[in-house]
Parts: sequence; structure tokens; C-alpha cells
Amino acid sequence: MGHFAVREKPVCPLNHVPALDLYFERQVDLTPDEMWRAWTNPALMVQWFTPAPLRTLEAEMDARPGGRFRTMMAGPEGPTVEGDGCVLAAEPGARFAWTNAMRPGFRPLVLNGEGDFPFVAELSFESRDGGTHYCAVARHATPEDRERHGAMNFEEGWGAALAQMVTLMQGLRG
Amino acid sequence: MGHFAVREKPVCPLNHVPALDLYFERQVDLTPDEMWRAWTNPALMVQWFTPAPLRTLEAEMDARPGGRFRTMMAGPEGPTVEGDGCVLAAEPGARFAWTNAMRPGFRPLVLNGEGDFPFVAELSFESRDGGTHYCAVARHATPEDRERHGAMNFEEGWGAALAQMVTLMQGLRG
Repeated sequence: MGHFAVREKPVCPLNHVPALDLYFERQVDLTPDEMWRAWTNPALMVQWFTPAPLRTLEAEMDARPGGRFRTMMAGPEGPTVEGDGCVLAAEPGARFAWTNAMRPGFRPLVLNGEGDFPFVAELSFESRDGGTHYCAVARHATPEDRERHGAMNFEEGWGAALAQMVTLMQGLRG
Repeated sequence: MGHFAVREKPVCPLNHVPALDLYFERQVDLTPDEMWRAWTNPALMVQWFTPAPLRTLEAEMDARPGGRFRTMMAGPEGPTVEGDGCVLAAEPGARFAWTNAMRPGFRPLVLNGEGDFPFVAELSFESRDGGTHYCAVARHATPEDRERHGAMNFEEGWGAALAQMVTLMQGLRG
């Protein structure tokens, strides 16, 4: 007689809505601290952040709420693309979030150009099975923005970048 | 021979740009903790948040980053106006920030309707001279948005609401 929905226990602590968000989840052979350093140290970030042949030419990071997260990226022959966003949450070794819809210092920004949609990206790092259970969510305002972001090879790109991170950080182990 | 700028020591810890932001600063006869409770307890907030004859009919507050800050306001005869925003920073007794440009859970929101401009509001509470040095900044993306917000009697409205807060919180003292 009853009619009820069965909810799966979420495996990831980050809220996300399938119709609006892109989602990435992996078990990673790095510690949460190693992943945190790879994400928040600019000298490390430029070495893994973009899947080859894209390159991250510059990175600037002030890993605290309101801080700057800026990157300058380029393809082998393409123009440089700058991302200048604002850190929203920064819990060392646990959680990191930022948005392109604010400038540093919590300043709102109107994004209405071509391909210039607002997003919030949030990451979680959880110690599990000797490594890290890693989740990443990119949240959008509309399904169309989700589609536009997805068309940029989100899943494949994040996977390739993560592989570069693992190689880099394992290579740095004493 | 030298030519140099004289910078005044900032009296307020909140970054703000005069051309883009609205700014409010007062010495208040409440403790930082009293001001924090007035801002973050919905049962208190509905009693002071809107300058009479406006009223706050409902308030909802989850005072942590990503939490909900929702209010329902109405004039004596006017329609109700809902504000549903996202908390950005919450340091009890010290600092509070939220934005209307995100839904709770750090979800971006596109604001492009009439009078629907994005802002970030940030407050600081600093114990000083037996009371609180209180700063409030409303940050905007453009000078036009600052003007639109200012035309809503920002300074006068915030001053009148603050007076209501002081009366309320002093009256609650044991």
C-alpha cells in the first residue's frame, strides 16, 4: 500500500543536484594532506592542474574564505585563459570550495558573456583505506550551464589532471 | 623631494571600494555577543531587522558557511518580499557575511531581473570602549548596482534597524 522513495546513502558529503551539477568521485592513492597541498600550493598546482597538452602557466592561491584563486592556462598554440575567483571554504586536508562568480574579497561579479556562466566548485578529501576518498562537485544555476560545463570534458579532464597530481605527489615522497 | 601618499589607518577591517560599495559604521552600546545573537537568532531577528513600519514576518538562519539566510518582509499594506541567500562567513561574535547571489549550499544564482542585483553583505563586530565597533559593508559588482541599493535608503534603514536592535537587546539583559 505504501509508496515511498528509496534513498541511497550518499557516499559523498557534498550536496549536489544531478540536473544542475557535475560530479566527480575517486579513491586516490594520496593522503588528504597530500591532496590539500597539491590543490593549494601554487608551485605544485602549475605542475598538475591542467590535463596535457594544456598547461597552467601561473597560479595564485590564498586558501582562506575570501582569498584569491587565480590561474592562467594555455593550450599548445591557443590563447591564454585566465580564471580569477574567490575562495569560499578552506578546511585544510578536508574541504575546499571556490567560485568564479565573485572576485577575491567576496565581491559579486555579473557573468553574462558567452560561455561565462557562474559556478561553485567544491572538493572533499576523506581519509579512507590508506588513501583518500575524493569528491568534486561543480554546481550551476541552470541545466544549460551544466551542459556547457560538461561539454568542456569535465569528467575526462578532471580524471587526467588527477592522474598528473598522483604522479607528482607520489614522486615527492621522501 | 619625496612624493608619497598618506594612508589613513583603516578603522574598519572589512574591505570596501567607495565607488562600488555601501558602508555603515557605528559605535554600539551592545557587546559583540549580543549583536551576534541579534543577527543570527531568527526569533530575535524578526523583532528588529526591518525599520518600522516595515516588518520581518519570518526569518530562517543557519549561521555557518553555505547555510541559509532567508527573510520574509512586508510593509504595512505592501506585498511580501522574500530574501533567500547563502551564508559565506560566520565567526561567532566577530564576523558575518552572506550573499543573495547564491542559494544555500553554495549554489550560484543568476540575477538579472529588474532591481535584482547581486550583493555581498559583510559585518564585523569588535569589542571597543565597553561596547562594539560595528561595521557593515554591502558590496556590488557595478556602480549602478551601488546606486540602486543606496536608493533603498541603505544608511537610514540600517540606522533605524540598528536602533531597534539596541532597544531589543538591552531590554533582554538580566
